[in-house]
Amino acid sequence: MTITITAFERSPDGGRGLARDTRVRWALEEVGQPYEVRLLSFRAMKEPAHLALHPFGQIPTYEEGDLALFETGAIVLHVAQRHAGLLPDDADARARAIAWMFAALNTVEPPILELANARLLESGEPWSEARLPLVEDRVRHRLRQLAGRLDEADWLDGGFSAGDLMMVSVLLRLKSSGMLGEYPNLAAYVARGEARPAYQRAFAAQLAVCAASHRPAD
Amino acid sequence: MTITITAFERSPDGGRGLARDTRVRWALEEVGQPYEVRLLSFRAMKEPAHLALHPFGQIPTYEEGDLALFETGAIVLHVAQRHAGLLPDDADARARAIAWMFAALNTVEPPILELANARLLESGEPWSEARLPLVEDRVRHRLRQLAGRLDEADWLDGGFSAGDLMMVSVLLRLKSSGMLGEYPNLAAYVARGEARPAYQRAFAAQLAVCAASHRPAD
Repeated sequence: MTITITAFERSPDGGRGLARDTRVRWALEEVGQPYEVRLLSFRAMKEPAHLALHPFGQIPTYEEGDLALFETGAIVLHVAQRHAGLLPDDADARARAIAWMFAALNTVEPPILELANARLLESGEPWSEARLPLVEDRVRHRLRQLAGRLDEADWLDGGFSAGDLMMVSVLLRLKSSGMLGEYPNLAAYVARGEARPAYQRAFAAQLAVCAASHRPAD
Repeated sequence: MTITITAFERSPDGGRGLARDTRVRWALEEVGQPYEVRLLSFRAMKEPAHLALHPFGQIPTYEEGDLALFETGAIVLHVAQRHAGLLPDDADARARAIAWMFAALNTVEPPILELANARLLESGEPWSEARLPLVEDRVRHRLRQLAGRLDEADWLDGGFSAGDLMMVSVLLRLKSSGMLGEYPNLAAYVARGEARPAYQRAFAAQLAVCAASHRPAD
């Protein structure tokens, strides 16, 4: 059955790979599953047809036969549970890898989202400059704990897993901030993720969409 | 094998059931699994013994034989996958219920966490009063979308699932704000969750810890 995901017709990040379809593309590349992409304009994302697929009007979604899923974490977990390559065979190790997925999305990403809001949505507010260091320190608190746990290991718990895929994806949002450089083992961890051939293919695929959308019309 | 979870020795919410152990207690009550609780002081949560279990120094954790897990979402999913009562049997419906768990934790909870930070951590800042309506509107944006999807249904996708358990738990954080009242179907949804006998038992169990910790020493 064909897998179809949705992505931005014009990604707000201009092809830096931070839109969440990259996480799903990466997972599909890791497990070797081909997929098709349906591109959506910002207007189409808010229309009933898409809201039926994604109640919060976002991308990506995932369709395969009768199954329609939303939420990146759920899609990546679904892919990881159906195909070999993203979760260990041992049941306990599998549960721990899934714990790292949730840690990425519910413990590490929220302060990073708050920082993004502070930078993007509140940059013109009178409190912006004074407040930013507070928000950055909330991110640093989590990075310090994560760096402490990772220590000198390559991946968070044994071999590369869907937990690492999600954690690296979340940390990539900090790349332009320079904050990762304060934690050299985390910076190296993210670089290891980016160096994986599956990530490279996912990144190239989302960049190609962006390049095409900025090409002048014939 | 005995299941042992961790919880606050003295919950910062004074027994309102908002600490995340309530989510795990609720899941265990829904599937009828007995559990033991190890209480932790704030100091103990930051010590190496607990950090080995939970890299971010939080509660709850979950221990069962050789398996040690952290992250509420991962623990609830683990419980739901091992025992009947929290996930549908049909594979597609199961994947959709898990999608609602991730939606609760990664789409609905982040703006609610941001609001909690604005209220608790930044209440004394000079920008607090002017900024609060912005943050509240980010929460309302998600509530409006969620209310639209729930419509007049009892639960998010068919029967009660781990997705509802997590979404109700996340929305309960808004109870004292009065914002739920702006979306009557969401308020009724949360009330339906709270009325479940399993939730009642979980709530009573966490309240009992709180009552004991505030009892004068003999």
